Amino acid sequence: MGAGPGQTLRVTVWGEGRHEQTDPDVARRYPTGMHGAVAEAVRRNLGDGVDVRTAVLDEPEQGLPDDVLEATDVLTWWGHAAHEEVDDALVERLHQRVLAGMGLVVLHSGHHSKIFRRLMGTTCNLLWRNEGDRELVWTVAPSHPIAAGVPNPIVIPAHEMYGEYFDIPVPDELVFVSSFTGGEVFRSGCTFRRGNGKVVYFSPGDQDYPVYHHPDVQRVLANAVAWSAPPGDLPGLPPVARASPGWFEPGPS
Amino acid sequence: MGAGPGQTLRVTVWGEGRHEQTDPDVARRYPTGMHGAVAEAVRRNLGDGVDVRTAVLDEPEQGLPDDVLEATDVLTWWGHAAHEEVDDALVERLHQRVLAGMGLVVLHSGHHSKIFRRLMGTTCNLLWRNEGDRELVWTVAPSHPIAAGVPNPIVIPAHEMYGEYFDIPVPDELVFVSSFTGGEVFRSGCTFRRGNGKVVYFSPGDQDYPVYHHPDVQRVLANAVAWSAPPGDLPGLPPVARASPGWFEPGPS
Amino acid sequence: MGAGPGQTLRVTVWGEGRHEQTDPDVARRYPTGMHGAVAEAVRRNLGDGVDVRTAVLDEPEQGLPDDVLEATDVLTWWGHAAHEEVDDALVERLHQRVLAGMGLVVLHSGHHSKIFRRLMGTTCNLLWRNEGDRELVWTVAPSHPIAAGVPNPIVIPAHEMYGEYFDIPVPDELVFVSSFTGGEVFRSGCTFRRGNGKVVYFSPGDQDYPVYHHPDVQRVLANAVAWSAPPGDLPGLPPVARASPGWFEPGPS
Amino acid sequence: MGAGPGQTLRVTVWGEGRHEQTDPDVARRYPTGMHGAVAEAVRRNLGDGVDVRTAVLDEPEQGLPDDVLEATDVLTWWGHAAHEEVDDALVERLHQRVLAGMGLVVLHSGHHSKIFRRLMGTTCNLLWRNEGDRELVWTVAPSHPIAAGVPNPIVIPAHEMYGEYFDIPVPDELVFVSSFTGGEVFRSGCTFRRGNGKVVYFSPGDQDYPVYHHPDVQRVLANAVAWSAPPGDLPGLPPVARASPGWFEPGPS
Repeated sequence: MGAGPGQTLRVTVWGEGRHEQTDPDVARRYPTGMHGAVAEAVRRNLGDGVDVRTAVLDEPEQGLPDDVLEATDVLTWWGHAAHEEVDDALVERLHQRVLAGMGLVVLHSGHHSKIFRRLMGTTCNLLWRNEGDRELVWTVAPSHPIAAGVPNPIVIPAHEMYGEYFDIPVPDELVFVSSFTGGEVFRSGCTFRRGNGKVVYFSPGDQDYPVYHHPDVQRVLANAVAWSAPPGDLPGLPPVARASPGWFEPGPS
Repeated sequence: MGAGPGQTLRVTVWGEGRHEQTDPDVARRYPTGMHGAVAEAVRRNLGDGVDVRTAVLDEPEQGLPDDVLEATDVLTWWGHAAHEEVDDALVERLHQRVLAGMGLVVLHSGHHSKIFRRLMGTTCNLLWRNEGDRELVWTVAPSHPIAAGVPNPIVIPAHEMYGEYFDIPVPDELVFVSSFTGGEVFRSGCTFRRGNGKVVYFSPGDQDYPVYHHPDVQRVLANAVAWSAPPGDLPGLPPVARASPGWFEPGPS
Repeated sequence: MGAGPGQTLRVTVWGEGRHEQTDPDVARRYPTGMHGAVAEAVRRNLGDGVDVRTAVLDEPEQGLPDDVLEATDVLTWWGHAAHEEVDDALVERLHQRVLAGMGLVVLHSGHHSKIFRRLMGTTCNLLWRNEGDRELVWTVAPSHPIAAGVPNPIVIPAHEMYGEYFDIPVPDELVFVSSFTGGEVFRSGCTFRRGNGKVVYFSPGDQDYPVYHHPDVQRVLANAVAWSAPPGDLPGLPPVARASPGWFEPGPS
Repeated sequence: MGAGPGQTLRVTVWGEGRHEQTDPDVARRYPTGMHGAVAEAVRRNLGDGVDVRTAVLDEPEQGLPDDVLEATDVLTWWGHAAHEEVDDALVERLHQRVLAGMGLVVLHSGHHSKIFRRLMGTTCNLLWRNEGDRELVWTVAPSHPIAAGVPNPIVIPAHEMYGEYFDIPVPDELVFVSSFTGGEVFRSGCTFRRGNGKVVYFSPGDQDYPVYHHPDVQRVLANAVAWSAPPGDLPGLPPVARASPGWFEPGPS
């Protein structure tokens, strides 16, 4: 099943889930985990058409056994401290599933996750500073569905700074550009088509700030999930195949 | 003649030239006109391979009679207060020449010039504030020739703010994004291929600030001129033509 | 009213409507006009969520009086022989409405229409040959909604050839590339964001062939209409405005 | 040393070099190897400003020991039968060097090489048929330097067919689109910026056809090498770094 008309969009919100265990401030800020806040944002904005579950690193099979992944149309990914613990075999399965059509929404420090770096083919390096800069998230593609329903700019009173140069491929679509109190800028909302799948990177969301409780950020999270959804059942991997002359011609009836 | 190997690149720096006449501060800031400073920047950085002339609105035929335009490989354009005075017939000639292959570098308030709006097909509207914000010009395409040789960011101590949403088509290449003291961001360096010609928009350069004396800005101006140069003689307008079957096959010898 | 959740998408299918009057073959091929076939394609595929009307050049106010245009969320445009007869004032109104957020789907010979050339800023020239080449329409962006539900390639047994170089700006998204019996290729499905509006160009659809009765072509027409729809009420033109420092900050409650 | 003004551009043409050993037809067709023909094309077109060497898989360290790679500004890559034999450690070094600024020109069946797939993040799958289709290589970006000096289309009398869907990221710039006798199309000339490096994919060049002796193909090879050259010394990898507030401000003199 997938996300076509009359179908329910199946979303899995994956979280590393470590800061919530080790840092009481994070646990207080996100009582259901950061993944809990992201899941709630998707549910609140997309309503009945969506079925959202959460998964975390410390669950069996790192939260994504085959049956879960095969029942996921869109996956959101937040990680930070434990990127290297994610199994390479899982990364390979994630990669194949994105190329086969699953949507992927990579959040904040997920820029350095194995799956994002593999999909991008670059270092995904950037500048950073965790000193509570105000972040302004400016829309530069006002007709893009990911920017629907949010003010221009979104004002995030305090956040970690992420700054250019952000070493990603040129995005297919640049939706948001952020500025920070210190003067840095960052391409904070980007889309990438890869194989039959759609990938969104959205940078707001550090564990040290209540960013995922921000209504405008929540709306973008939901928009990104909706935008990256496959049209129905996943199309599968693009084939490599020998093609006979005229293979596309209608056959005899 | 054009800009191929062994050829001299012929650059015409067009300036509106009005603020220099009416505002003593501008005249003091730019004793040879703003166009004089732009021309000097191109000469200094591109050296012997370039032949630079200037032209201003109040000259005969608005500085761009046929013989001048036909001897121009790359045109730079700065205008502000007198966009509407530019003859529609001249705009038509400029448009045709860009589509035929001439490079065009549009500067700052030239965003609202007739030629830029005609090439873009949009309003080219933006937000602005003339209160001496510091502008930081960030490179987001480090391997692009237009960004060669400048620091990331370029620091402009005081400048007019130009802010998003900047109503232009999605640039073919986004080279620079600026931030301002007030927190606004702006896509300040953009390229656009149109017909056989190349167009660059670069936003720094308000009459109330000595921006065109800034060495890094000067380097970008020269880089933009070099990048937008045609490969030799102008290719001419892309044709509309009936094509017989096999028209591209080599003929009998 | 617009095209948000629970709203009806209001589509106006504009046709030049001349070939149907002067060429009996075209009249036989398209008994309700080419516009009739396009309208039917949209209705059949988008169903109850859409309200489709048709308009033609020879109606009062060229089919698009203010009240009709103001009640149009997406406009499709087919013209060929009478581009020059379209009033410049109407073109200006169309242009403003697209920039304000209306979707526009330009079809086939509409590449040379005044509104498309104005939005593109280029000649929109191309090569052509009307000798019944087979056209294959290849999808190069398989995850794009405009390509949903059609085979790769779409096979059009006989059609007019349109060939490169097609003088348009680089499309924001290239969805389809066609080949023809004679070996020419053409970027036949392209999207362009302009202002707050979305523009699609789709080339199949010559009056001398029953292309608009082709089920796959019909599906693309409907997909293009759906994709270019505004999110609800039209946002209006992007503003030019002076911005005070901190204008975006939340006010006192 | 690198490729700035007055510097010599150092090009390494890497070839798998196996078909030449195992297939007498290939050996006859390319007496100095396919790599020899590619090297000759670059030398002939770029002349004195370039220093070209060749390297093949069966040389020590697969032809690319550290000192060779560190003396390479642009690398061209042709492989086919032995992609899996290329050492992962070498692929890692190639990847790092491209991101640090080295140009990379990937040719034909190199689409499935480890380095290209790693840079793209996709399967790079495609359709193929080796039956001597005529390939027409159409320019869709006439002002791009990679298309300079070649006819539109380039006519290749007989070649292997490569067809869509070609599973690559959306190219930053699409320069060429090919058609084949059988009706397939292919995005045959593409550019991609990755890190500080520039990547070109150009599809003509199968071992079973004398494509690399074709003067127009040779010109494109040389253009691609010139376009992907770094501006001087390689900039190095984009950094990940903490940035103190105001780090970009000029220090005290």
